[in-house]
Amino acid sequence: MKERVLTGDRVTGKLHLGHYAGSLQNRVILQDQYESYVFLADVQALTTHFDRPELIRSHIREIMLDYLSVGIDPGKTTLYVQSMIPEIAELTIFFSMFVTVNNLRHNPTVKAESKNSSLDEMYYGFLGYPVSQAADIAFCKATIIPVGEDQLPHLELARKIVRRFNELYKPIFVEPQALISETPRLIGTDGNAKMSKSLGNAITLDASTEDLAHKIKRAVTDPARVHKNDPGHPGICPIYAYHRAFLPQDAAEIREGCERGSIGCSACKERITSALEMLLAPMRERRAYYAARPRLVDDILMAGTRHTRSLAQETMNEVREAMSLDYFK
Amino acid sequence: MKERVLTGDRVTGKLHLGHYAGSLQNRVILQDQYESYVFLADVQALTTHFDRPELIRSHIREIMLDYLSVGIDPGKTTLYVQSMIPEIAELTIFFSMFVTVNNLRHNPTVKAESKNSSLDEMYYGFLGYPVSQAADIAFCKATIIPVGEDQLPHLELARKIVRRFNELYKPIFVEPQALISETPRLIGTDGNAKMSKSLGNAITLDASTEDLAHKIKRAVTDPARVHKNDPGHPGICPIYAYHRAFLPQDAAEIREGCERGSIGCSACKERITSALEMLLAPMRERRAYYAARPRLVDDILMAGTRHTRSLAQETMNEVREAMSLDYFK
Repeated sequence: MKERVLTGDRVTGKLHLGHYAGSLQNRVILQDQYESYVFLADVQALTTHFDRPELIRSHIREIMLDYLSVGIDPGKTTLYVQSMIPEIAELTIFFSMFVTVNNLRHNPTVKAESKNSSLDEMYYGFLGYPVSQAADIAFCKATIIPVGEDQLPHLELARKIVRRFNELYKPIFVEPQALISETPRLIGTDGNAKMSKSLGNAITLDASTEDLAHKIKRAVTDPARVHKNDPGHPGICPIYAYHRAFLPQDAAEIREGCERGSIGCSACKERITSALEMLLAPMRERRAYYAARPRLVDDILMAGTRHTRSLAQETMNEVREAMSLDYFK
Repeated sequence: MKERVLTGDRVTGKLHLGHYAGSLQNRVILQDQYESYVFLADVQALTTHFDRPELIRSHIREIMLDYLSVGIDPGKTTLYVQSMIPEIAELTIFFSMFVTVNNLRHNPTVKAESKNSSLDEMYYGFLGYPVSQAADIAFCKATIIPVGEDQLPHLELARKIVRRFNELYKPIFVEPQALISETPRLIGTDGNAKMSKSLGNAITLDASTEDLAHKIKRAVTDPARVHKNDPGHPGICPIYAYHRAFLPQDAAEIREGCERGSIGCSACKERITSALEMLLAPMRERRAYYAARPRLVDDILMAGTRHTRSLAQETMNEVREAMSLDYFK
């Protein structure tokens, strides 16, 4: 059996260079090696955006354009919408029977994302986030999950849940393996450790030539470099981080030039701007192609969702049989 | 629109006289007045029996025979299996987004049923029991829920959840009304406040003539009545409770006779035995009829489940539209 790789994005906004460096770029490579599934996590987005579902709707199409523009190929990757696979909800309910509150609240991601509120104030669905993630992975029997280091505890809990199901009922699920992404989080244009649309420090994948140039021009650099020849500290500079992520072959030269004060911030910014322009230009073209064909985009997503649904139904038949819930058989 | 009444039973064992007095009897009356739905709550049973699902399976057919034998009429009442309506799981997931852990843990039923364990040790699905109950009620737009006093907090939370959904999205759900059952819990044959199969103090609805006589004969009575003519205390006697529940027209006479010491325990037991025999005899007949026709019983349950599923799908279309999750429309 071919390995099956699964990734997804919470549907909370357009994707940006941080997503590209951390995940999308890799997905384009992985789709040639594995059976590949990518999903739009709209139900997961509801855990924090339940009062703004109309935003989710508008972002579905944007993210589809992001996917298609970066080169995710619907001929190689199955794209689907989470909320259109009701079997995930069913499996979440079954899994939730044998996962304790304790398992969930000590999950570092739940802990971190909820650090401002007590357990009591937490929404029940938010607390159950890792259970639904386990269902996301299990229902389609994904074997490989590309994750960042920070996501490992989630995956560990998913493995534990799947293992427990297999012990309790029948061994029908595979324990998914992590494929650790080497690219750390991409720094924002304002120097914030995380590029994020809500922080206004992101370069989105649909940025125009002007947008891109403007964003890079306004990006912070090492504040110690007042004059062009002052020695810089590339380690704290977003622009240097972009060099490393998107122009790695020149990164050593840039680092040296910056540290010695032989390359100024303007020149450095120009080089990364043109490199990023070379990256984004073909994306813009593909985006324009699909943006002009909304029906085609819908068809791609519907076909992927239908295919995934039939996979989900197969799995749920096995689940019902394993749990003795297959009455009338 | 005709009012819609919903009841159900957790699939954890055969039904007994306590269920009959507290609920089943009433359902047979209600099915003539309202559009009536009765469901086998197998998913709810999993919250406490997830490690013994094979028991649930065997009880599905037993409970169906219980229903049919007491006179629940498939021509008037739609019977269905909870786990075969995946839309309930979906709705539970949506509701869980905006219900806090605090709402759930202070629910008196969750509190009572979990008094031996801390919140941390509780299973996530068990904690969410009231959310899934809200989904059970909402998906089929039940307007009347017959409940005991002790179930009122659950229903209040369901009303609150439905109200919140209506405010957040669109007012598509009705707030269900309680129909308070006047029959308190039926005392067990051992004098325990609750008749329960697991306590071994129950008279099941399929009890044979011999079983019934034996159970009543061995039932405790007022321990102060050593001699037949000793004055008794009917208030603490299970047999008197059965008189009140199943032979109410004679209850005043029995009470007086007991208190005056003019009717002995044996005579009193004989009277209730023959009254119960008259109740159970026609049930046995109907049970035998259906027990000999397992395909018919399956067909009834499948037809009811199919009908309910189409209702569920209609509701979920409204839910998706209300939540802006109806993509591709």
